[in-house]
Amino acid sequence: MFSQEIELRGHIIDSLILPKVLDEILSHGGNFKIRKIQIGQERTDPSHARLEVSGPSPEVVDDLVRRLRQHGAEPVKEAEAQLAEAPADGVFPQDFYVTTNQQTFVHTHGKWIEVKPTIMDSGIAVDETKLEATAVKFYSVRKGMKCVVGHHGVRVMPLQRATDRPSVFEFMASNVSSEKPKTAVIREIAEEIRRAKEQGGKILVVAGPAVVHTGAGEHLEKLIRCGYVQRLFAGNALAAHDIEQALFGTSLGVYLKHGALADEGHENHMRAINAIRAAGGIAPAVEKGVLSSGIMYQCVKNHVEFVLAGSIRDDGPLPDVITDAIEAQKAMRAKVEGLSIALMMGTMLHSIAVGNLLPAAVKTICVDISPAVVTKLTDRGSFQAIGLVTDIEPFLRELVGFLMPHGS
Amino acid sequence: MFSQEIELRGHIIDSLILPKVLDEILSHGGNFKIRKIQIGQERTDPSHARLEVSGPSPEVVDDLVRRLRQHGAEPVKEAEAQLAEAPADGVFPQDFYVTTNQQTFVHTHGKWIEVKPTIMDSGIAVDETKLEATAVKFYSVRKGMKCVVGHHGVRVMPLQRATDRPSVFEFMASNVSSEKPKTAVIREIAEEIRRAKEQGGKILVVAGPAVVHTGAGEHLEKLIRCGYVQRLFAGNALAAHDIEQALFGTSLGVYLKHGALADEGHENHMRAINAIRAAGGIAPAVEKGVLSSGIMYQCVKNHVEFVLAGSIRDDGPLPDVITDAIEAQKAMRAKVEGLSIALMMGTMLHSIAVGNLLPAAVKTICVDISPAVVTKLTDRGSFQAIGLVTDIEPFLRELVGFLMPHGS
Amino acid sequence: MFSQEIELRGHIIDSLILPKVLDEILSHGGNFKIRKIQIGQERTDPSHARLEVSGPSPEVVDDLVRRLRQHGAEPVKEAEAQLAEAPADGVFPQDFYVTTNQQTFVHTHGKWIEVKPTIMDSGIAVDETKLEATAVKFYSVRKGMKCVVGHHGVRVMPLQRATDRPSVFEFMASNVSSEKPKTAVIREIAEEIRRAKEQGGKILVVAGPAVVHTGAGEHLEKLIRCGYVQRLFAGNALAAHDIEQALFGTSLGVYLKHGALADEGHENHMRAINAIRAAGGIAPAVEKGVLSSGIMYQCVKNHVEFVLAGSIRDDGPLPDVITDAIEAQKAMRAKVEGLSIALMMGTMLHSIAVGNLLPAAVKTICVDISPAVVTKLTDRGSFQAIGLVTDIEPFLRELVGFLMPHGS
Amino acid sequence: MFSQEIELRGHIIDSLILPKVLDEILSHGGNFKIRKIQIGQERTDPSHARLEVSGPSPEVVDDLVRRLRQHGAEPVKEAEAQLAEAPADGVFPQDFYVTTNQQTFVHTHGKWIEVKPTIMDSGIAVDETKLEATAVKFYSVRKGMKCVVGHHGVRVMPLQRATDRPSVFEFMASNVSSEKPKTAVIREIAEEIRRAKEQGGKILVVAGPAVVHTGAGEHLEKLIRCGYVQRLFAGNALAAHDIEQALFGTSLGVYLKHGALADEGHENHMRAINAIRAAGGIAPAVEKGVLSSGIMYQCVKNHVEFVLAGSIRDDGPLPDVITDAIEAQKAMRAKVEGLSIALMMGTMLHSIAVGNLLPAAVKTICVDISPAVVTKLTDRGSFQAIGLVTDIEPFLRELVGFLMPHGS
Repeated sequence: MFSQEIELRGHIIDSLILPKVLDEILSHGGNFKIRKIQIGQERTDPSHARLEVSGPSPEVVDDLVRRLRQHGAEPVKEAEAQLAEAPADGVFPQDFYVTTNQQTFVHTHGKWIEVKPTIMDSGIAVDETKLEATAVKFYSVRKGMKCVVGHHGVRVMPLQRATDRPSVFEFMASNVSSEKPKTAVIREIAEEIRRAKEQGGKILVVAGPAVVHTGAGEHLEKLIRCGYVQRLFAGNALAAHDIEQALFGTSLGVYLKHGALADEGHENHMRAINAIRAAGGIAPAVEKGVLSSGIMYQCVKNHVEFVLAGSIRDDGPLPDVITDAIEAQKAMRAKVEGLSIALMMGTMLHSIAVGNLLPAAVKTICVDISPAVVTKLTDRGSFQAIGLVTDIEPFLRELVGFLMPHGS
Repeated sequence: MFSQEIELRGHIIDSLILPKVLDEILSHGGNFKIRKIQIGQERTDPSHARLEVSGPSPEVVDDLVRRLRQHGAEPVKEAEAQLAEAPADGVFPQDFYVTTNQQTFVHTHGKWIEVKPTIMDSGIAVDETKLEATAVKFYSVRKGMKCVVGHHGVRVMPLQRATDRPSVFEFMASNVSSEKPKTAVIREIAEEIRRAKEQGGKILVVAGPAVVHTGAGEHLEKLIRCGYVQRLFAGNALAAHDIEQALFGTSLGVYLKHGALADEGHENHMRAINAIRAAGGIAPAVEKGVLSSGIMYQCVKNHVEFVLAGSIRDDGPLPDVITDAIEAQKAMRAKVEGLSIALMMGTMLHSIAVGNLLPAAVKTICVDISPAVVTKLTDRGSFQAIGLVTDIEPFLRELVGFLMPHGS
Repeated sequence: MFSQEIELRGHIIDSLILPKVLDEILSHGGNFKIRKIQIGQERTDPSHARLEVSGPSPEVVDDLVRRLRQHGAEPVKEAEAQLAEAPADGVFPQDFYVTTNQQTFVHTHGKWIEVKPTIMDSGIAVDETKLEATAVKFYSVRKGMKCVVGHHGVRVMPLQRATDRPSVFEFMASNVSSEKPKTAVIREIAEEIRRAKEQGGKILVVAGPAVVHTGAGEHLEKLIRCGYVQRLFAGNALAAHDIEQALFGTSLGVYLKHGALADEGHENHMRAINAIRAAGGIAPAVEKGVLSSGIMYQCVKNHVEFVLAGSIRDDGPLPDVITDAIEAQKAMRAKVEGLSIALMMGTMLHSIAVGNLLPAAVKTICVDISPAVVTKLTDRGSFQAIGLVTDIEPFLRELVGFLMPHGS
Repeated sequence: MFSQEIELRGHIIDSLILPKVLDEILSHGGNFKIRKIQIGQERTDPSHARLEVSGPSPEVVDDLVRRLRQHGAEPVKEAEAQLAEAPADGVFPQDFYVTTNQQTFVHTHGKWIEVKPTIMDSGIAVDETKLEATAVKFYSVRKGMKCVVGHHGVRVMPLQRATDRPSVFEFMASNVSSEKPKTAVIREIAEEIRRAKEQGGKILVVAGPAVVHTGAGEHLEKLIRCGYVQRLFAGNALAAHDIEQALFGTSLGVYLKHGALADEGHENHMRAINAIRAAGGIAPAVEKGVLSSGIMYQCVKNHVEFVLAGSIRDDGPLPDVITDAIEAQKAMRAKVEGLSIALMMGTMLHSIAVGNLLPAAVKTICVDISPAVVTKLTDRGSFQAIGLVTDIEPFLRELVGFLMPHGS
């Protein structure tokens, strides 16, 4: 929905002005909200009203405003966005505008132009020649770039609720606590994933090592094999423990099959990392037959694009890990385009990092057994994020059961 | 294992005393631990050793001690338990001995007699005529009862690990955290339950309302129907929400089938309570056809003995609820006899209360999504308790799957 | 604010009806919200509007409605509350209305009468002779009582935000998480408590045993001594551990002064209970000089009315404990009158139980180190409850510091 | 303690061999544990015993073993460590030995040599010429390096409890839960810190942004100013929020002084980062007067060496942040030498990362409000780590109070 505020002044109640204005709006495909109405004490005192006129497209709104001006309505002036030059590479001008994860427009040279991509905690660089506005991170700022400063002339379009079909992302008022029934919600999530896949939307999985530790790896493998995953963002730990499991049958030294500790098993993840380093990386290890099962194996076989981002607690790391945090952010950002759904499981660090890169319009599901993590991740001011406080292994098992009722 | 400490003094190293004593013990079916050995600085200085001699029965140990005395060994004297009279009804004598949940013996009139039942945080009343020792709670104390005071002459027998077959209760070093694979452990628990049932052991379920809220009620119903539950201890909330679910399809106003909120659904549990009050209780409601499904229904139909204990946060309550805390403790204590396994799910209050009533020998499984609750409940100094940090619904679903692989 | 819905039909936009109605409302001390406006497609089609007319008193609203009828406005009819007889003692009629913790009015015999007291999860009994409406619990229902059924003719008045001075209960959007600065909030809470005391409001403390375990007992004692506490609701555990601390210097066997475990210290709470049982209760123990320090001692000395409610996990209990849950609810309910502030610390069971008894207007502060507990307790749909996720001992220390800057 | 296993065979019980051996050991400054004793069924059957002979130095043990050989005792042979060549840069030989955080010795060329530094999850490279053993990370491995493989000839020396003075790290059986009194423990920690400072030991603080959010920054500043901190390891977030607080008075947009949200305050941390980027870094910002208070300011002024390690969730980052995870690990590892105490507060990522770098001998204190984090961090198999479940701000306030009783 697009909108424009207008003002009415004078004897708008007494005369026919207000009813006429409302009538015009409604009979030309628009809608209105009365923002403010101030009535004079005496009948003859002038009154004042402020209305937000909205419509399905900027053209409809423009047309409406033109008509209403004939009834004395004045559009509330939109200021132009203020621009200032970046003083140095990597440095924004003082007082630069900081983006949110909502669709954003900048008012410049009399027009509203959309800021692309939609990404939070960036500045906005404006190309006055091409009339383009770009969200830029610190590392992309170059000396002399024109950047938006202050808050004038910037408009954020909050996500609209779909009116046709209520989705699980909308009827869920908030997070699903550990004390709520989850089967119905998981069925709805499966429905969303199936629909996204049918419509060609891409699905991102963000996963922590708990996916492997809890024995949920086999379910994620099935999702990948059946084409329900197009991107995987994770850290060294997920991949290392997955490969440990593929090579030794253990995760952090615990046998997944029977839950017992392996002798010297805590060393297995170090040996797994060593084996992949010796092979020259995950894909080479798959080619050479060193690695022939597991999540990472399925990613290679099914052309899932993965980004493994490093952290200071990593052992190794695997050769595929991007150890530089900024490079890893760039790599993930490059693969965010076209995502419909992000499924985040068992990792606070990666989930927050990815959450910071996603537009609010990407439907996000966050699953963790800790309520604190779920609250932190879904508290993004968007009804497109739902959180489930539950155990990852049974969650993924049930999700796979709904998506592939007859196994795979 | 029974044991007795003995002392050796003199030139026990230099002479042949120590080897002879060890030889005697080992060649007559006993075993030993050297508690302390003190060697004189000079060869001629006397030495001193203290050994714990143990054997499979008190008779073997007695026989050993008799033999060892011939080598100069002196049994370390066991003091008699001291007794004092209770000064008033409901009041123990000062400095009364407080029991643990381990098997306990009292040394009185030269004999070791077992304290029955095994229950923690009680005093010990001794009947000197019958030579019987009874664990008594405050409310059972009567003026003039002879109670053990101080710590002399009381011996606690810690649980011995079974040597024949390692059970899940023994190889589990500690709790199963949320980050561990649980399938293997649940399979083992199913095995223990199946074995307990075959051997005629009784199984107790202690359950909080989360069992119903999470949609796990149907799994518990199956366990009851198939004879895997002989006792149910719970509160008003579990029963009220189960009956709400049976009568209205909701739990705390949430439809379990599709996860949505019912209109005015928060009132349903009040109406459920009202309906049972009108019928005169749970069993009458089953008879009259008012209640025809759910956990409580299955309990009535399958002759599961249940105790519903009241608490100050209860609505209603249901007519079956014992609102007096002490009466409820007595009722539960009366049904603890003969239990093999206690399965505690989603309730801290009831689990701690029941834990306080159980002998350490009852195998206890505690399931909760909060690590804090699981730690609190399993931290009882016994390897007979295991805790799982997981979601109740998938836990019970998987448990039922292992026990009834072809449905029921 | 009182309000009444009215309907307008006909050519309300085209004609002068709508502006006139709005003018009338605003010029006679009222206010309005447009609930619905439906405009005919063609200019000549009739339109329809629904407005909520509100005013500072029922009289103003009545007067306004009378005036608006002259413009063709029709008040939307308020149904009378439906009444039905209770079928038996302790049983409500089917479909009985269930109260919330908000101020509630019943429309009967043409008048709106307030339901007293304000207490949630009760039914409403109406005395048609005296025109009185009473919130009744299950245990107070008597056969033949007239009770409200269904939802017609019942109106709930949500708490209004104070407009004069913003209080900490209002500017706090939600709970204070563990990651927020708390000093400012604690200072505000101290301010509220000081103000409540000055205005003669009563302050209730609801406390769990963690208050004693964490060493916060001495701070609570100071609050009591300085007249900041008029009521204390707790369980056997708080009192027993407080008395254990007073008699032996330990809490659950841990020395509060140096944090070390006492030998056999776990028995101390049993001996503390025994000592009070021997004395005949807490007040007698204070009189006899058995108990001469601690929270309970200060309660007796400073005439703080306390209710100790029993639970099934209690040892003992102390003679002062009300072991019957329903009797304990009644005792607490009787002491809820006149409360301004409720400060709940370290107990989920008692806090929920007390929360169920309090009108929404009582300002409630809930302090616990577990975010789950705080969320559960403050999620009562009222801006009069704030929660702090923090450690109890430093919270109380800082609160006391603000209230008594120069010690006591 | 150093030790060596020896074996005795023959008629060791019947003859005088065993007593003589024990006598020799004890009278020459050694000690023994009987590992195994096997007695023949018949008096004339040979027996077999295995003893661990220990002493305060390798020399004493060597001397003892020499003496015992004269009684027929045979030292159990220690295998030599097996070595294999690294097949490529960055790759260990298969089956390489993985280190722990305990002091470790390698048996090579007939001698026990210590592995330096003590660091977990490394391989061991042996220089056979110099007879030196070095713990190496993956990134330091060079093709052809001789690395230990398998487990033979490697011995780990667990930390010994100090016998002279019991420290808080020893009497604390485990973590301090949220329900325990903490004042006594904090006093002891202050004592340890004071002692470490007096003895010239270095103190490391590892801190997450919660230190700033909770308002604890000022306490940490005092610790730095008074010389109680020599190293600070943190991430971009701690520094950015500290600088936000120094420049704008907010942390994550919340005013620390009065707890209220600043308008557009969520942008402040972006502007803080921008200001430091414009100045060219933290130290230049201090020099230029841009930054004149806060934790980072105090670090610069008091020559505290800090390492800011990047992560993928960082905004900015600040110019001082090392964005490459491996480079950050190296930077931290270089500053770990000479540490006595590590105080970790409010950060799981950095605490685990640093924990992996520290020898077990560094006394570690971990403070967090989440029990899960504390358990994870202190569960390192060492009695040199204690955890406190508490709020960071009051913890630091109280710690500062003990260290600087008269303010600073």
